Amino acid sequence: MTANTPPKALAFDVFGTVVDWRTSIAALVGQVLSAVGRPDIDAFAFTDDWRMRYLIGMRDFGQTGRGFVKLDILHREMLDALLVDMQLDLAEADRHTLVMGWHRLEPWPDSVEGLNRLKRRFPLVTCSNGHIALLVNMARHAGLPWDAILGAEVAQAYKPAPAAYQRTAQALDIAPGELCLVAAHHGDLFAARAAGLQTAFIHRPLEYGGAPAPDLQFQQPWDYEAGSLTELAERMGC
Amino acid sequence: MTANTPPKALAFDVFGTVVDWRTSIAALVGQVLSAVGRPDIDAFAFTDDWRMRYLIGMRDFGQTGRGFVKLDILHREMLDALLVDMQLDLAEADRHTLVMGWHRLEPWPDSVEGLNRLKRRFPLVTCSNGHIALLVNMARHAGLPWDAILGAEVAQAYKPAPAAYQRTAQALDIAPGELCLVAAHHGDLFAARAAGLQTAFIHRPLEYGGAPAPDLQFQQPWDYEAGSLTELAERMGC
Repeated sequence: MTANTPPKALAFDVFGTVVDWRTSIAALVGQVLSAVGRPDIDAFAFTDDWRMRYLIGMRDFGQTGRGFVKLDILHREMLDALLVDMQLDLAEADRHTLVMGWHRLEPWPDSVEGLNRLKRRFPLVTCSNGHIALLVNMARHAGLPWDAILGAEVAQAYKPAPAAYQRTAQALDIAPGELCLVAAHHGDLFAARAAGLQTAFIHRPLEYGGAPAPDLQFQQPWDYEAGSLTELAERMGC
Repeated sequence: MTANTPPKALAFDVFGTVVDWRTSIAALVGQVLSAVGRPDIDAFAFTDDWRMRYLIGMRDFGQTGRGFVKLDILHREMLDALLVDMQLDLAEADRHTLVMGWHRLEPWPDSVEGLNRLKRRFPLVTCSNGHIALLVNMARHAGLPWDAILGAEVAQAYKPAPAAYQRTAQALDIAPGELCLVAAHHGDLFAARAAGLQTAFIHRPLEYGGAPAPDLQFQQPWDYEAGSLTELAERMGC
């Protein structure tokens, strides 16, 4: 842990850091697959494949020349491609149900308490590639007390582009070094640090169901490290 | 009151509708003027003059060719011009104190309860010309439970330009007609209706200390009308 001036605000990665996308989406995938008579397909493998396409898509987004797109659209494109590869046809309504499932993810058990404690001292904002409508729906569903929904849509840039982090600080009228990104992903924190932000790593060993994270090559000592958001609150004196 | 499909979300004007800028700023102006030995200057007249410059500035902003600017900067420019006209010199620190006073305005007595009731049923967002940092600070100071901070900075357009309203709906992924602007100002509601939004008028007869509002020429029957945000919650079944 580096000695730092305390940040003036905290910006959160959301998928995986605050909410457990894998359990929530796999449950929904399982329901849909059962309803269409395909309970033999592994819902977790389906979910992991869908998510991996997203991670690759975001990593390479800067090369596509596309501007900001609401995440629902990207999720839908990646789902359609996954279904083609699986040679599985799903009805329009089922595809819509699956895409909208990302609006109703469940928080990790410590998230709501941890955020409420951190909020006493710090403004809490999102710094996610999710779009505003999705993050508003998720916050209302899961009880996440954000002070503002910032990130890709407001910045008009996706993480890990530096602008996604720097424009989030700019929207709060603070310097990048006064903002701390809280994330369970080394790759995200690596990019945030390169953009000038402080960094807080949250261990989420179950994000991939216990499998190793895909971004371990970016691991390094972060400014803060904690096993949960309540532990981060403790470390930050909240 | 017009028969309407209920809105899917509520967007709030903030200054005057949710918070009582006049009482809060006049108190601060009074403190600063006393401290510099000018308690003879009428703090309410000072405040009203400052605010009127803002209203005129916003009305005419589209003609200036300037892009979005954080409201602190506009407040400072208007304060500096007011002080020149008054032939009153204030130190840099005092000017800064006055500008930052707009981050710490007090809510009207019904605002916090009304918003919390409305929030049970509707996502609540700001649709203000204030910038994000100001509105985050104000919400934390006054306890305003916004689901998202939208409006001029996210839309990169000031009210009453149609884009300020339409991009707020777009950020929520709903049609303009599914969003209801809640405001104490007929001019704001007139522009919102022209942009396709539903409209809710809140009577705030003390916004100008009992003096008539400057936008009475835009008065017309609105979709909802109420004497407070708790009354609006009642009318909307919250």
